[in-house]
Amino acid sequence: MHLRYQILEKIRGSKKAVSGQALSNELNITRTAIWKHIKQLRKEGYNITAKPRVGYRLKKIPDLLLSQEIKRNLDTDFIGINIINYPKISSTISVAKRMAKKGFPDGTVIVAEQQTFGKGRLGRKWESPKGGIWASVILRPKMSPSEIVKLNMVVSLAIVKAIKDVTGIQTEIKWPNDVLYQGSKVAGVLTEVDTEIDSVNYAIVSFGINVNNKLDKLSANVQETATSIQEIKGKKVKRLALFSAILSYLEKLFIECQNSGCGEILREWKQVCLTIGQELTIKTVEKQYQGKAIDIDDLGRLVLDTDDGQTVALLSGDIVSS
Amino acid sequence: MHLRYQILEKIRGSKKAVSGQALSNELNITRTAIWKHIKQLRKEGYNITAKPRVGYRLKKIPDLLLSQEIKRNLDTDFIGINIINYPKISSTISVAKRMAKKGFPDGTVIVAEQQTFGKGRLGRKWESPKGGIWASVILRPKMSPSEIVKLNMVVSLAIVKAIKDVTGIQTEIKWPNDVLYQGSKVAGVLTEVDTEIDSVNYAIVSFGINVNNKLDKLSANVQETATSIQEIKGKKVKRLALFSAILSYLEKLFIECQNSGCGEILREWKQVCLTIGQELTIKTVEKQYQGKAIDIDDLGRLVLDTDDGQTVALLSGDIVSS
Repeated sequence: MHLRYQILEKIRGSKKAVSGQALSNELNITRTAIWKHIKQLRKEGYNITAKPRVGYRLKKIPDLLLSQEIKRNLDTDFIGINIINYPKISSTISVAKRMAKKGFPDGTVIVAEQQTFGKGRLGRKWESPKGGIWASVILRPKMSPSEIVKLNMVVSLAIVKAIKDVTGIQTEIKWPNDVLYQGSKVAGVLTEVDTEIDSVNYAIVSFGINVNNKLDKLSANVQETATSIQEIKGKKVKRLALFSAILSYLEKLFIECQNSGCGEILREWKQVCLTIGQELTIKTVEKQYQGKAIDIDDLGRLVLDTDDGQTVALLSGDIVSS
Repeated sequence: MHLRYQILEKIRGSKKAVSGQALSNELNITRTAIWKHIKQLRKEGYNITAKPRVGYRLKKIPDLLLSQEIKRNLDTDFIGINIINYPKISSTISVAKRMAKKGFPDGTVIVAEQQTFGKGRLGRKWESPKGGIWASVILRPKMSPSEIVKLNMVVSLAIVKAIKDVTGIQTEIKWPNDVLYQGSKVAGVLTEVDTEIDSVNYAIVSFGINVNNKLDKLSANVQETATSIQEIKGKKVKRLALFSAILSYLEKLFIECQNSGCGEILREWKQVCLTIGQELTIKTVEKQYQGKAIDIDDLGRLVLDTDDGQTVALLSGDIVSS
């Protein structure tokens, strides 16, 4: 651990103020060096008071997705062993892909306070102002490419469960990959994979969540369909707690899916999926379908009874009206 | 076209020697400049003679996979509009991926005389000394990820057809992606894709062909199973003609597969596939199977009657004994 985080942990762990001299003795560096590290921690957003002859005290940790803070709440085995956080970045997906290619390990997490070129499905833009959670996780699943849709379900279910645990809010899933609250979008999930014919080199699972970001910073057409957790709750929520909870669920569900199959996950996912039972128009990359959604099958496909009397199973698509 | 290739084409197109003065007049540059370009062309491998008071004459083009030479023989619409050739490169796949991500267009070809880190299936090494053909093509197919196996079939069939046309040699395909001659490996194919759940961002189809490369430059264990076209034919063959033929077939079959389905391609592929009918042991990423190969299905999967009485369809795997 970097020296300044060692200092941080010593201050954090103490109910009383910690004197510069005590820190200097314990860590075997000068009091001037201690002071410099405190200044750096303040720059990062930590509210640390310094009283002459009394010492340092941690008043408040910042509501920033700093890797050392996220890790404090994680009970995972591999997701989040590596966390890289950025104040501002083009897109966590691009960075994650580059890192995956370079060999960064399974479970590496990339998170940003802001994205300048956030990416949605099919090359669309994803608006990512300050206050949300914009993140990607590198996974190296032992699955065949055709099973990758299960990762998508794992991620959206992890988000729904974590939001419920941390805020008490019950959200729902709109197939294939949006998380909604009373019809408005709270979060989106995007899974990209690099594969050979039958094996996955790596997968990048990404998600964007409107948490404490101001909705009026979103463009007009996004505002129409979006909401945020702060908006629902009526007050700011702790992003750190939420993000840690998501990563914990993500690992738990991912391991369950790999080891015991995804049957139970599919069952839970269907319970919170609001798409089943709806009359829909769905646009896929190739075609448009109209009909009634009757189920999600074992492969994560939406089963649709079309108006012209056929039953089709769709792996993905846009619900254009419902 | 670069000035020196304009000079090259003028010399190439003339039965008689072309005087420096004539070139100088036509291209409106000094004779000294002409001379410098000729020197550069010679450096690239062109054998150009220069006789005082007579002029320049092209004696021989090099047997190098230079983009301007490949393009001369191409009758394609989009494959090979961009060709980038390298004397030596880590791996054409890595470079092609980087370029695909940067937005290089559908049909961009990367080819190298030598690869220092040539890549085979599942992260294996592919030995790539001078004299072979080591190439990758960026494709942006409008297919779902599950159909990508068809690209693999398109590439291997293109190679078999081009080898037959250019050299008269009839090779065979060992499922899923090797081209053999009498049991020894002549070529290998590797397809990698970058996808979302239901759409392909890009595919990189790559192949390595032992053409005129010396077999004793390959490591001992590769020598055991490999052969080269030169070895089969008893003399060197024109790599340029072969490579151009492969790219032409690749485009023709790819377009056919996208527009009219891959039924006819599958039928042709099966005719040259030596795996059907064999008693095999196959290792997949997860499992090992033993049985008799009875067919290749519409999805490109090997259908196997296993010794314990089941029928399985495998998307890929290694034939460990036959």
